Amino acid sequence: MPHTEALLFPLAMIALVAEAMTAALAAGRRKMDWLGVAMLGCITALGGGSMRDMLLGHYPLWWVKSPYLLLLTGGAALLTIGLARVVHRFHALFLVLDAIGLVVFTIMGCNIALAMDQPLLIVVVAGMITGCVGGVIRDVLCNDVPLLFRAELYASVSIVTGLLYIGGIKYGFSPDLVTLVAAVTGLVFRLLAIRLKLEMPKFIYDSDAK
Amino acid sequence: MPHTEALLFPLAMIALVAEAMTAALAAGRRKMDWLGVAMLGCITALGGGSMRDMLLGHYPLWWVKSPYLLLLTGGAALLTIGLARVVHRFHALFLVLDAIGLVVFTIMGCNIALAMDQPLLIVVVAGMITGCVGGVIRDVLCNDVPLLFRAELYASVSIVTGLLYIGGIKYGFSPDLVTLVAAVTGLVFRLLAIRLKLEMPKFIYDSDAK
Amino acid sequence: MPHTEALLFPLAMIALVAEAMTAALAAGRRKMDWLGVAMLGCITALGGGSMRDMLLGHYPLWWVKSPYLLLLTGGAALLTIGLARVVHRFHALFLVLDAIGLVVFTIMGCNIALAMDQPLLIVVVAGMITGCVGGVIRDVLCNDVPLLFRAELYASVSIVTGLLYIGGIKYGFSPDLVTLVAAVTGLVFRLLAIRLKLEMPKFIYDSDAK
Repeated sequence: MPHTEALLFPLAMIALVAEAMTAALAAGRRKMDWLGVAMLGCITALGGGSMRDMLLGHYPLWWVKSPYLLLLTGGAALLTIGLARVVHRFHALFLVLDAIGLVVFTIMGCNIALAMDQPLLIVVVAGMITGCVGGVIRDVLCNDVPLLFRAELYASVSIVTGLLYIGGIKYGFSPDLVTLVAAVTGLVFRLLAIRLKLEMPKFIYDSDAK
Repeated sequence: MPHTEALLFPLAMIALVAEAMTAALAAGRRKMDWLGVAMLGCITALGGGSMRDMLLGHYPLWWVKSPYLLLLTGGAALLTIGLARVVHRFHALFLVLDAIGLVVFTIMGCNIALAMDQPLLIVVVAGMITGCVGGVIRDVLCNDVPLLFRAELYASVSIVTGLLYIGGIKYGFSPDLVTLVAAVTGLVFRLLAIRLKLEMPKFIYDSDAK
Repeated sequence: MPHTEALLFPLAMIALVAEAMTAALAAGRRKMDWLGVAMLGCITALGGGSMRDMLLGHYPLWWVKSPYLLLLTGGAALLTIGLARVVHRFHALFLVLDAIGLVVFTIMGCNIALAMDQPLLIVVVAGMITGCVGGVIRDVLCNDVPLLFRAELYASVSIVTGLLYIGGIKYGFSPDLVTLVAAVTGLVFRLLAIRLKLEMPKFIYDSDAK
């Protein structure tokens, strides 16, 4: 589906930059040095796709085949150091860019699994891993319990986007149309979740029993 | 060895459910949301085997080939939310189920490595990774120092089980008999370790030196 | 390049032992039990190469093909328990051995990626992952923010070593000479960084914005 790729590619580049920049801010909160900032930017932006590929045995990984992605994401993270005072004023913009990244990476992850003829449930999971796991690795490296498991709807957005995308493809609609509908729906869902502070119910369990 | 698989399969399903349920309780202690609970359940129950397969280059992974395992473990984790008040009354039962999981996963991991003609030490390690690493990932995602490295005999049980199993297979005994002996010995060893609070000696080191 | 391998191999063995021993001390600070100490030693010493191989799809992993490496590193970690009172007197020696490990593993990682005909940037990154990621995994398992991202020049030393090595190889110099020059330069650079407390500038970012 080269046509759809042409649609997704520029959005993916923007999203990689956005994820690297927010990872840089997380690195700054942990007082990391410049190289650490660049590394955390690369790992966060490219980690979800890397995890998907290692789990599916899909080699070579994206950044291994296209190493300029390391320069793009590492460079964006470094740039953030200079822009830190300005960046937080654009907080809302970053939330939008991160949401674009979530849906775009989800669809790209689904495409990889579809091309491997994986079962449908695995296609959805591959999309979710691509969209969500980078942030989990970032949080683990920053010594936090991953936000993904606790905060506003994020993985749910990825699942909805993936289900819409696969449903549309399987139903035989044009990939471009399906991509557009799934991406816009996912994006609106995510932004509503942020705006309205939509959260899943929490499971709170206190017990001495281990 | 299809015969032995028929013996292990139902035990493995029970053990997957038990590991997902205890992971759900850990998620509840961290106040994760429902989807986080389901994800932690899947990751904990299936993470050990996934790590083994990625380290050995053994594709496809179990849950990728049999996606219903995600529904089984995720579903068991979700169910735990409703049952939380009851579950901790069955603490002892869960310890037994978790111990069954430990020995069953160990033997299944050994089998995979045996089928790949790995050296014997790698077979034991593959069994130990399968049995133990899911809990390590759970603890890392919950921001704890993994229990595996600190608590009652757990990895040791896996090693003993694996050694017995491989020794028996190499010696030419019937796989079913070997599986039974290794599993029961491992199980008894683990339950004794819990009951008698058997622990390895600890290494306690205090020093400013890094 | 079997000749260079012969040069690097004994250094690599020494470095594996040194990394396992420092990991054992970290395990002791977390009060891990003996088996935990052995496991953390193996994971730290062999984790960087394992991560590189999983990312590049380069199978079998080193320790899977040569399981005695598990005995070497696990054994070195266990030995450290008995030697703990003495070990910290040799703090300076360990820093030197760890620095040797950093440059030797970097060069070995570059060699693997060169043999796979990876792009040059990936060769440098493969070297850095081999040299640095073991320590990151150790810190994550010990529930620390990885030192790599915060402390004295470490990843930078790996990058400089890798760049020198690849530049020399590509320029057509004898592999032995290039190995020697890259390794000595990297080693001196690392030891100077420790002695002079050379650090990268830190990125410190405080904001309530998430």
